[in-house]
Order: sequence, then structure tokens, then C-alpha cells
Amino acid sequence: MAKVALLIDNDFEDMEALYPYYRLQEAGHTVIVIGPEHATYRSKHGYPLRSDKTPSEVSIDEFKALIIPGGQAPDRMRTKPEMVGLVKKAFEKNLVVGSICHGAQMLIEANTLKGRRATCYISVKTDLINAGAMYLDSSVVIDGNLVTSREPKDLPDFGKTLIQMLAS
Amino acid sequence: MAKVALLIDNDFEDMEALYPYYRLQEAGHTVIVIGPEHATYRSKHGYPLRSDKTPSEVSIDEFKALIIPGGQAPDRMRTKPEMVGLVKKAFEKNLVVGSICHGAQMLIEANTLKGRRATCYISVKTDLINAGAMYLDSSVVIDGNLVTSREPKDLPDFGKTLIQMLAS
Repeated sequence: MAKVALLIDNDFEDMEALYPYYRLQEAGHTVIVIGPEHATYRSKHGYPLRSDKTPSEVSIDEFKALIIPGGQAPDRMRTKPEMVGLVKKAFEKNLVVGSICHGAQMLIEANTLKGRRATCYISVKTDLINAGAMYLDSSVVIDGNLVTSREPKDLPDFGKTLIQMLAS
Repeated sequence: MAKVALLIDNDFEDMEALYPYYRLQEAGHTVIVIGPEHATYRSKHGYPLRSDKTPSEVSIDEFKALIIPGGQAPDRMRTKPEMVGLVKKAFEKNLVVGSICHGAQMLIEANTLKGRRATCYISVKTDLINAGAMYLDSSVVIDGNLVTSREPKDLPDFGKTLIQMLAS
């Protein structure tokens, strides 16, 4: 079973973080919640989730996958070089990277989208295209090890795809 | 694939409703959200979930399973005979019934626990025992078609068990 990094900051979209959090555990994987500091972060609606580690405390080689939820958390995380650095390293090491909704802002900030097929929340579409990606309006888009979805209603497809990619 | 009833009312525990909601869809099932009225209900933290149907609009025979999340929603639902009636009928028809945390208050109200092994949130333990159940401190307890769990951290085991019982 794999170790999976889940990136969070305040105002994460509740279900986009917590559905993968529980779903990956259900499949037997270990989810390590990584935030900028050791703290209890709060979702958009105030649901608490404590970080297990900060970026400087982990090595990307431990992980098989990295998940970026949406909400306003990516807008916060993209200003924190250590958090963005984890995304860059995840691509360098060819981890499975799952991003949903505004999570794409972290893919953009890490400059990982040139020539890639991807999707995101509709409000981020122009930024995604400007960053060099080909935008697709689909519940889940797979391009190599990159898995992207648009919004909470895509979570069943997002979850299923992540589970399949971690099993293979 | 099966049709599954998810009972809600205001102040449902966010993840105890929404994890099964997305997880069952991921497995290909159809989740029908049933509330006392046609309304958008709010979780403890304010996450919205709209009811698809009211109890009088459904027949229990449509469903293969019925899920009762926790939070303060069961305290509200137990005072509404139509909602309690659905639980009674689910037992009469031998549906898979999944209850987590304070969801057990609905099992008690429907008088379905005599001689059954079950679990619930620690604060409800005495009521569960007084209702005739044998309480077990376990992440998931299976007794016939009844599946019970204690709290959000049990969701991976709760989800996995429901999926297995719906597949068999």
C-alpha cells in the first residue's frame, strides 16, 4: 500500500480534501496531511483537519501520490514556496498527482502544465490555458500521471481514478 | 447497481453523510437523499445538501440500503414519525442499514435494536444498551444486515463494509 501526500491550507474545499482523505484510507493507503505549519486547518465551512507534517519534514520519495484539493487553500498555498516546491518535486519524481477544482492553481504555480491535458474549476480555465495546458470539460482528465477534476460533483470519478492508478 | 436512501436533517455530521454519499456513487450506486421536506439542509459546519425526496414520496421497496449519518440530525429526525417510519420499514424489508455515530438514535427510536450487536458514539452508548442492544467498541459492527460505526474516523471501515454488503 502507498503513502499519499494531501496538501492543505485554510479554506480548503471540505469534500475535495476529505473525500480523498477517507477514500484512500479505505483502500489501505496512508494519507499524510501536509500543511505550511503544524496546525489545525479549517475547511471553507470550518471543518477541522490537522497537518501531520510540514514540507520540510518530508521527502517526496516517501510518496506514491500527491493530492491537491480546491477551495481557497490553493490561493494561499501558491504563495508559500515550500508548498509549491512539493508539487514541482512530485512531477520530477513522476508521482501520481491528483488536483481538483482550484487545486489547478498549484499546478500553474509549479509550472507543470505545458502541453498537458487537464481540467479545473471553470473560473480557473483561462489561467490553466495561459499556463500552457489544453483544457477539457470532463469529470476527470488523465494525462500520464496527472489526474484532474473540476468540482465536488466529480469526486466519484476522481476517487475511482486515483484508486485505480495507485493499484497499478 | 443499487438505490440507497441517505437520511438527513439539519446539523448532520458533514463527513458521515457526505463520505457515504460520494463513496456509494463511486461504486455505481444511486443515492437518494431523503429529508423531512424538500429543502437544502446544512451540516454541522454549514455544508449544504439538498433532499431529493421526502419520506412520503418513496417506497422502501425501491432501496437496497438505508444510511443514517450522525451529528445532531438524528436528534431532529427522531421526532418526525415519517423519518422514523422509514427506518422501521427498512428493517422489516431486511435492507442493509448503515448507522454511524448519533445515527443510532434513529435505530433506538425505531425500536430495532433488541438483541442486536451494535456500536455508536460513546455518548449514546447507555441509550443503545437500554434499548436492548449489545454495545461493542469497534470501528464497525455487523449484525445481519445492520452495519454500525462509532465516529468519523471509522468511515474507511464503514464505507468498505457497506460497499461489500451491497456487492453481495
